[in-house]
Amino acid sequence: MTMHLITGGAGFIGVNLIRRLLAGGQEVVVVDDMSRGRIENLGELEADPRVRVATLDCADADGFGAFVAGLDGRVDDVWHLAANSDIPAGIADPAIDLQRTFLTTFGTLAVMRRFGIGRLHFASSSAIYGDFGETVIHEDIGPLEPISNYGAMKLASEAQIRAAAEAWLPCARIFRFPNVIGVPATHGVILDFVEKLRATPDRLDVLGDGTQQKAYLHVDDLVDAMLHIAALDGRYRVFNIGPSDDGITVRRIAETVRDAASPSAAIAFGEGNRGWVGDVPRFRYSVDRLLATGWRPRLGSQAAMERAVAEIVGARA
Amino acid sequence: MTMHLITGGAGFIGVNLIRRLLAGGQEVVVVDDMSRGRIENLGELEADPRVRVATLDCADADGFGAFVAGLDGRVDDVWHLAANSDIPAGIADPAIDLQRTFLTTFGTLAVMRRFGIGRLHFASSSAIYGDFGETVIHEDIGPLEPISNYGAMKLASEAQIRAAAEAWLPCARIFRFPNVIGVPATHGVILDFVEKLRATPDRLDVLGDGTQQKAYLHVDDLVDAMLHIAALDGRYRVFNIGPSDDGITVRRIAETVRDAASPSAAIAFGEGNRGWVGDVPRFRYSVDRLLATGWRPRLGSQAAMERAVAEIVGARA
Repeated sequence: MTMHLITGGAGFIGVNLIRRLLAGGQEVVVVDDMSRGRIENLGELEADPRVRVATLDCADADGFGAFVAGLDGRVDDVWHLAANSDIPAGIADPAIDLQRTFLTTFGTLAVMRRFGIGRLHFASSSAIYGDFGETVIHEDIGPLEPISNYGAMKLASEAQIRAAAEAWLPCARIFRFPNVIGVPATHGVILDFVEKLRATPDRLDVLGDGTQQKAYLHVDDLVDAMLHIAALDGRYRVFNIGPSDDGITVRRIAETVRDAASPSAAIAFGEGNRGWVGDVPRFRYSVDRLLATGWRPRLGSQAAMERAVAEIVGARA
Repeated sequence: MTMHLITGGAGFIGVNLIRRLLAGGQEVVVVDDMSRGRIENLGELEADPRVRVATLDCADADGFGAFVAGLDGRVDDVWHLAANSDIPAGIADPAIDLQRTFLTTFGTLAVMRRFGIGRLHFASSSAIYGDFGETVIHEDIGPLEPISNYGAMKLASEAQIRAAAEAWLPCARIFRFPNVIGVPATHGVILDFVEKLRATPDRLDVLGDGTQQKAYLHVDDLVDAMLHIAALDGRYRVFNIGPSDDGITVRRIAETVRDAASPSAAIAFGEGNRGWVGDVPRFRYSVDRLLATGWRPRLGSQAAMERAVAEIVGARA
C-alpha cells in the first residue's frame, strides 16, 4: 500500500483525489489548515481507516515536520494542493498569496527534503501564463508574466520545485490547469451565480459583459489526468491539463445556471471583458503534450459545465 | 533633484550606480542590511551630503516603512538590488534565497505601495532562464526553469513585480544580467582566483575543466545600460543586459588572473563542465532588444574581464 500525503486535502480537488486514491487501494494523509478546506468536505471519507487527517499549516515547516516525523517514514507521494484559492483576496492583500500559495510550497519542500520523500505532485495553474490573448498556450511558451499575485506565487512555487529537482528531488510533476469545476465547490463562477440567484431569484448580475471565454475541466477528468501523469517516467515534467476545446463564455454559464436554478431570472451584464484585476478575458490552451501520452478528457468545457451546474444546484437544493 | 532609494546600495553594483547618480546631480538613499554589503564599499561617497545611509533589512516591511516614512514622501525611484549574491550558499540552504532574494522584493513592493512610490528598477538575473544549452536566450523564451534557488527566487521576484504592475505599480523595469565584474568585487570567479593565488601563489585549482563559457559585463557598462533603460517609456519592460558576444571560457579567465597576479603558478583543472550544482556551463545571450533601443556596451567579455582583473588585482595589492 502506498501512502499519499495531500496538502489542502480537505479542499475541492483534494477530496476528489482522495476518493480516487482510496478506490485504488491506497492510504491517505490529509494535511489542511482548514482556512478554506472543511472537514465536512471529506464526508464519509473521514471515517475510512486508511485516512488520517491533520489540521496544520504546511507553511510552518517545523510543525509540519513534527507531524511527518510521526508517520514512521512511510510517506511515498506528496500531492501539494494547498493554496489560497481566492484570487481577488490575494489581489487586495499580496501577503495572502505569499503565505498560502508560495510559503506552503516552500514548507512542503523543506519537509520532503528533511524526511527524504522523493515524489511531489504540484497543482499549479494556468494563471502562471498571464494574458496571451489569442495565442495558443503550450507549456514551453514565454514570456511568463502572471498578472495576479496568485499566478505569481504559483510560478514562484514551480521555480522553487524546479531548483529542488536539480539539487535533490528525484520526481516532480507540475500540473497546470485552468478552471476546474464540480463538487464540493468552494469558489468559482458557477457557485457565485448559484448563490447570487439564491439571494435574488429574479435577477443575476454578471461582472463584465459576459464575453470572457475560458476552458473548464470537470474535477473527475482533472484527477484522472493527475493520476495518469504521476505514473509517467521522468524527473521533472510539466503538463497543461484541460479539455481540448477553446472553452465557453461566461454568458453561456450564466444562462445554464439561470435555467437550472431560477428560470425566470433576468441576467444583467456589466461592462468590459475583465471581471476583476488579474482576470484573463480569454485564453487558448494547448493540451497536446498530455494528449500525446494517450490521455483523453471525458468531458469538454460545455459538458463539464452542465454537469457541474447540475451537481452544484443539486448539492445546494 | 530626484531622490533614488537603492536597496543593497552598499554592495558591488550599488556603489557603482550611486557614483553615477551623484555625478548626474541626483540624491541617494542607501538601504542595506550590511550582511554582504559593507559601509567601506561606499568610500568617499558616504561623506557626500546628498547621500543618506540606513542599515536595515528591506524584507522587514515594517522597519523599512518606518524609515521611508521619515523621508517626507520624497523618494521617486527605487533601485532594488538587495539579494543573496552567494549562489552556492543558497543551494545549501534555500531559506537564504527565500529571505534575501525574494522576501526583500516582497518587502520593497509593500513599502512602495504604502508610500505611493511608482518607479521600480529591479536587478534580476540570467539565472531565471536555467540551462538552454546552445539555444540563444532572448527575453521572451520559454520554458523558464531556473536550476538554482537563487534563480528561482529572482523569477519569483519578477513574477511578483509583474502582478504589481498589473494592479498598482505604474513603472517597472527588469534588468536580467549575467556575470558582472569590476570593483569593489564581493564574489565571483575572478576574485575567487585572486584569493586562491594569494593563499597558494604557485598553484591555481579551478572547479570544472575550464570549458564553461559565459558572457561577462563590466559594471560600468551595466550601470550605463540600467540608466538608459530607466529613461525609456512604458509600464513594464524587461531587458537582457550583456555584451554582444558569446563570452569567454573559465580557462581564459584563469590564465589572465594567473598572468596578472602570480605568473609562475600552475593551473590545475578539475573534471566536468559544471563548477557546482546550479551552475550553467554555457549560455548564449541575446541583447538584441537592448541594442534596438540604441544602447551599446563599451567593452566585450574579453576586454571587460581583462579590465576587471587589473582592477581587482590592483585593489588587493
